[in-house]
Amino acid sequence: MTVELLETALAFGGEQRKYRHDSNVLQCAMTFSLYLPSNSENKELPLLWWLSGLTCTDDNFSQKSGFQRLAEKYQMAVVIPDTSPRGEEVADDANWDLGQGAGFYVDATEMPWAKNYQMYTYLTQELTEIVKQLLPHFSGKESIMGHSMGGHGAFVLGLKNAARFQSISAFAPILNPMQVPWGKKALTAYLGDNQATWKNWDASELIKTAPQVPILIMQGEADGFYETQLKETTFLANALENNRKVGYQKFAGYDHSYFFISTFLEEHFSFHAKYLK
Amino acid sequence: MTVELLETALAFGGEQRKYRHDSNVLQCAMTFSLYLPSNSENKELPLLWWLSGLTCTDDNFSQKSGFQRLAEKYQMAVVIPDTSPRGEEVADDANWDLGQGAGFYVDATEMPWAKNYQMYTYLTQELTEIVKQLLPHFSGKESIMGHSMGGHGAFVLGLKNAARFQSISAFAPILNPMQVPWGKKALTAYLGDNQATWKNWDASELIKTAPQVPILIMQGEADGFYETQLKETTFLANALENNRKVGYQKFAGYDHSYFFISTFLEEHFSFHAKYLK
Repeated sequence: MTVELLETALAFGGEQRKYRHDSNVLQCAMTFSLYLPSNSENKELPLLWWLSGLTCTDDNFSQKSGFQRLAEKYQMAVVIPDTSPRGEEVADDANWDLGQGAGFYVDATEMPWAKNYQMYTYLTQELTEIVKQLLPHFSGKESIMGHSMGGHGAFVLGLKNAARFQSISAFAPILNPMQVPWGKKALTAYLGDNQATWKNWDASELIKTAPQVPILIMQGEADGFYETQLKETTFLANALENNRKVGYQKFAGYDHSYFFISTFLEEHFSFHAKYLK
Repeated sequence: MTVELLETALAFGGEQRKYRHDSNVLQCAMTFSLYLPSNSENKELPLLWWLSGLTCTDDNFSQKSGFQRLAEKYQMAVVIPDTSPRGEEVADDANWDLGQGAGFYVDATEMPWAKNYQMYTYLTQELTEIVKQLLPHFSGKESIMGHSMGGHGAFVLGLKNAARFQSISAFAPILNPMQVPWGKKALTAYLGDNQATWKNWDASELIKTAPQVPILIMQGEADGFYETQLKETTFLANALENNRKVGYQKFAGYDHSYFFISTFLEEHFSFHAKYLK
């Protein structure tokens, strides 16, 4: 396994790095970004995952959120994967909500997607092993967060691996993909028409049976996708019915952009910090 | 004069806006970005200018620096102009260091550039008047800062208008454009071969005679452009010889990117805040 360092820059005293490697699981070359705080006291560091939304690469959060200030303040390593397999040999779609840039963090079973679109296994196994080797002082503690499609991904990975992830948070997540246009389109393509299989990849279903994990969700009320793609109703009802605690906060005037994320990102870092000690 | 609001988003409690207008000075349509802090106490607000570097538009600083957190904290309005005239009718060059995206904040005298490339007059007069009308509680106090070519611009505007701008700061500025490849190329194109005219647009010359203005400069030592384009030697020598005080700080390991800017941006805001009260 060769992992090539493409770029590194100092940011807030730590290092913002970007890597490339050939993925066996995805059968294509992948990039990811990794922030290592200064760790001047040589302590053991936890690992925080950020999963991005539709159309994003690992660069969006790295360049637009200002998270490095917080990762340094809270002394956390942060890994930012890409959102899908990539390349000319990889299946794609003409629309931005399917195919490259829109992997939806599932393991696809339908062709032509199944060959490369194994994002769940890639993240939870292959990339995990790579990142661990790049963390000189890993504490073994992990939490996960994301935005929009990546908020969906944070719940899929977090709830299916509740013993592994200490806490889950999301900005404007797709909480019920089975019931919204983005999700229906992607799950049909990647998993086929049998909606019974979709339930394995839907936060509103997973919350019914997953062990309790600390959860924080933030949603902007001026988010143009809120009513059609991001409704929280079923997720919160299912959580309540099954006695799962969820922190869900709405903010007047905020939209779906990185301005919303950057404004409230410190509250997510301080939330995860409580459980990553 | 019609000024069209293209976008607005809440960020850290204030508003990040983007506008478009037809510029009489530049004879083309222009965009600019403006941040208005929440100003919940209805106080008079100062105006801070940010001038961007080569290849940038008004979006780079808006999306990559995280400045909104600081503009809200220090309650300053911030305006971010584009870096040149734009459009199919506007003269351009095949290289990224001349023409569109590379206006160098001068008033061009040579054709074909002179028709549109009047960035100095555009910023100090036309855009100034527009922005003042968009500030409901303007205190009348202004300061200016920038990055790379925009650091050069901050010194050109700031030193030529020392009675207007309370303070000047820059990240990795082109301090002596007459003596470096980027500057020689641009000044030759925009102003012609007579180097006597170039002195009106070179910080190392302007510092000799401009009144004292508080100045803060930061330079990363891992900046790949430092030795060839950004050397401070002549500027500092000329400042010393003429009894002008300059704060000049170098930082080991930091490069030319927005990661450097975002890391130290708070020190620039707190610097300007001292003089904008």
